[in-house]
Amino acid sequence: MITALVEIDVERGRINEAAQKLVDIDGVAEVWSVTGDHDLVALLKLREYDQLSEVVTNHIASLPEVVRTKTMLAFKVYSKQELEEAWNIGVD
Amino acid sequence: MITALVEIDVERGRINEAAQKLVDIDGVAEVWSVTGDHDLVALLKLREYDQLSEVVTNHIASLPEVVRTKTMLAFKVYSKQELEEAWNIGVD
Amino acid sequence: MITALVEIDVERGRINEAAQKLVDIDGVAEVWSVTGDHDLVALLKLREYDQLSEVVTNHIASLPEVVRTKTMLAFKVYSKQELEEAWNIGVD
Amino acid sequence: MITALVEIDVERGRINEAAQKLVDIDGVAEVWSVTGDHDLVALLKLREYDQLSEVVTNHIASLPEVVRTKTMLAFKVYSKQELEEAWNIGVD
Amino acid sequence: MITALVEIDVERGRINEAAQKLVDIDGVAEVWSVTGDHDLVALLKLREYDQLSEVVTNHIASLPEVVRTKTMLAFKVYSKQELEEAWNIGVD
Amino acid sequence: MITALVEIDVERGRINEAAQKLVDIDGVAEVWSVTGDHDLVALLKLREYDQLSEVVTNHIASLPEVVRTKTMLAFKVYSKQELEEAWNIGVD
Amino acid sequence: MITALVEIDVERGRINEAAQKLVDIDGVAEVWSVTGDHDLVALLKLREYDQLSEVVTNHIASLPEVVRTKTMLAFKVYSKQELEEAWNIGVD
Amino acid sequence: MITALVEIDVERGRINEAAQKLVDIDGVAEVWSVTGDHDLVALLKLREYDQLSEVVTNHIASLPEVVRTKTMLAFKVYSKQELEEAWNIGVD
Amino acid sequence: MITALVEIDVERGRINEAAQKLVDIDGVAEVWSVTGDHDLVALLKLREYDQLSEVVTNHIASLPEVVRTKTMLAFKVYSKQELEEAWNIGVD
Amino acid sequence: MITALVEIDVERGRINEAAQKLVDIDGVAEVWSVTGDHDLVALLKLREYDQLSEVVTNHIASLPEVVRTKTMLAFKVYSKQELEEAWNIGVD
Repeated sequence: MITALVEIDVERGRINEAAQKLVDIDGVAEVWSVTGDHDLVALLKLREYDQLSEVVTNHIASLPEVVRTKTMLAFKVYSKQELEEAWNIGVD
Repeated sequence: MITALVEIDVERGRINEAAQKLVDIDGVAEVWSVTGDHDLVALLKLREYDQLSEVVTNHIASLPEVVRTKTMLAFKVYSKQELEEAWNIGVD
Repeated sequence: MITALVEIDVERGRINEAAQKLVDIDGVAEVWSVTGDHDLVALLKLREYDQLSEVVTNHIASLPEVVRTKTMLAFKVYSKQELEEAWNIGVD
Repeated sequence: MITALVEIDVERGRINEAAQKLVDIDGVAEVWSVTGDHDLVALLKLREYDQLSEVVTNHIASLPEVVRTKTMLAFKVYSKQELEEAWNIGVD
Repeated sequence: MITALVEIDVERGRINEAAQKLVDIDGVAEVWSVTGDHDLVALLKLREYDQLSEVVTNHIASLPEVVRTKTMLAFKVYSKQELEEAWNIGVD
Repeated sequence: MITALVEIDVERGRINEAAQKLVDIDGVAEVWSVTGDHDLVALLKLREYDQLSEVVTNHIASLPEVVRTKTMLAFKVYSKQELEEAWNIGVD
Repeated sequence: MITALVEIDVERGRINEAAQKLVDIDGVAEVWSVTGDHDLVALLKLREYDQLSEVVTNHIASLPEVVRTKTMLAFKVYSKQELEEAWNIGVD
Repeated sequence: MITALVEIDVERGRINEAAQKLVDIDGVAEVWSVTGDHDLVALLKLREYDQLSEVVTNHIASLPEVVRTKTMLAFKVYSKQELEEAWNIGVD
Repeated sequence: MITALVEIDVERGRINEAAQKLVDIDGVAEVWSVTGDHDLVALLKLREYDQLSEVVTNHIASLPEVVRTKTMLAFKVYSKQELEEAWNIGVD
Repeated sequence: MITALVEIDVERGRINEAAQKLVDIDGVAEVWSVTGDHDLVALLKLREYDQLSEVVTNHIASLPEVVRTKTMLAFKVYSKQELEEAWNIGVD
């Protein structure tokens, strides 16, 4: 399972709209409006490394509401045992 | 459910050690070593807003390996329906 | 009581206009024009955590004069006893 | 009434200690532990402009736990009418 | 006497124009074109704290040539004795 | 007359001490403790360009309390007529 | 052999297009879409120092999709022996 | 093939030493001393995504000469056909 | 002899054009396209301090291709003896 | 002829000392103490690209007074004709 965080800046006044579209993209587990420098953060959970380019470049970055994206990839996931399966249910 | 991301800078050479301690803290759902400016990111899932100060200030920020923390709080979580329960299982 | 600070950048020449609209938003306790990098800072005092998204995303960030917002949320409020009630009067 | 916000970075693991000392300083209305780049923010409400140097330089910046301070001063306070008196009660 | 420095970014090619308008504003003692990140810096010497908002927000920031302003306020002025009167002559 | 602004970061808790020493340096007209990113700003008024290196490098930057300096030089001074003489009195 | 890395920001939604054009430029060995602050990074391997200006300024920076470039030049290449020839095959 | 760039800051005066140790790490294809903000950049070519944490966290970041690392991961590699095999020879 | 470096950002795709115009300005000794954050750097060698404003503000900053300039002024030039005359020939 | 600018941060109070040592290094044409973020800038004029690593890494960066260096390399030098020979005299 590949985990990534995508920090997203959105066109003024279009945060809710963008968030709804993002959460419908395959591989996007959750989307949050957040404190701090960016408007939204998307949590990705992907089966294949090669899906990253497809999800980030071809889906997220090309949404008309999205101005800029900055991706953080997890090298390693240190997670509590039970959470592991939770993600498998979520993303099937 | 309160969701937060804590970006964490760690003492040189102590990333694995810090990650193990972090993942054992109540309220910490996952910890990742990541690309980009920081060493680790912790994903928090808390029942009460008041737990934040306890988890971030009294537990995470006071670990000897931790040099600096920067917290992003989610105003709103836009999530796929099935994921919602997954978190409930994971954090009970 | 949830406390937050929202740093706000405004369209050129429209600081007073924006400040007046901001102070009329429910949950906004005070608005200041400030020294430093931003034009205005709004102090929020809210009863419910869920009001945050409503006030910040749907009200403040969608004002036509507002270019960018950056929110700081208080984990914990360390305040002098008598101030506590003062806020209650103010926000009722 | 002079209003100011002081962003404060604190020695590792000493946030609570610093917050308690800060809130006891005359002129400090509230202290928050916050999300984002800094550890604490102090809200100052002062009667005289000249008190600023005394409170910020001689009290806040000289606390042993305090590493760095960055002050934002309010040019103008746009506040809801009833809040005005609240501050007067609080700071007398 | 309130002292402030306002760092000013100006529309391309309009530095001289902006500088002349700025120096004619009451309360502006000097204007310099400078090395470094900004185009101009204005030195303000004001009798009343409340003049700040008027001079910075309503006069400087609303000049059509001005793109962005960043104000630094002096808490305390440590000045050589004889300079003190000099400013009084200058600003009467 | 050469005009320069020197932004100065000072050792923790030694702002007043540093300010007093700075204001006694020939060529330093005023020193302010300020809001924003730095502790102090010194305003220099010099007769000769060559004095700059002497004042900034050999005097200001070598004070034990001074951690870092950043100098802004004025290309051109646009000033109100009467102020010009005021500086001459001050710096003779 | 001169080695350089060019960090490239691209017009919104045109990452793939830009990457294809970049990889066809003589001297460009590889192009990656990347995590972090930029959209693409191009790895250059050139025979002559003078080719740099041609490749970076006249080819890469002038592509219509390219918004900004930032070049890092290698002073010295410390490489595993066998890789050395690999580049020679690749760039002939 | 997973491609990554690791920007590395090194202890003063120990650049050559660090570069030699880095180039001997399995998975590190090349190391360059570079212009710009960092001392060295290492180019990684790995067969498995899971090797990343091992190479970056356990090998590169734990070298005594290394002060800080910042990793950029390639989502997608757009490369000239013949280069593809070159890397395979190099890393076998 | 006054020495200054002007870092220059240029309209997209117009680097060569801008460089040619810059090098023809009196007082500009050399112009380089450079690695790093800016497009061009101009090296100025001037006889009089007062020429600075003329060259930087009235000539360089007002070129239509120039988007932003940032000037660094030399307090003191430590140079190898023989170079001193070289500049005199160059700029006569 | 390879041209480079090296921005140099120096130990507190040791600017003159560092500048003298720097100017004696072969390939260093001039050294300036400067306004802005750094203490010194060295102008390099080198015959061979390969000298860069030797001069920057092995000489400049290893001086005990030098804390940090940041190098900008010129892709292309657009210079007035007569200056070209001047450099040749200076560096022989």
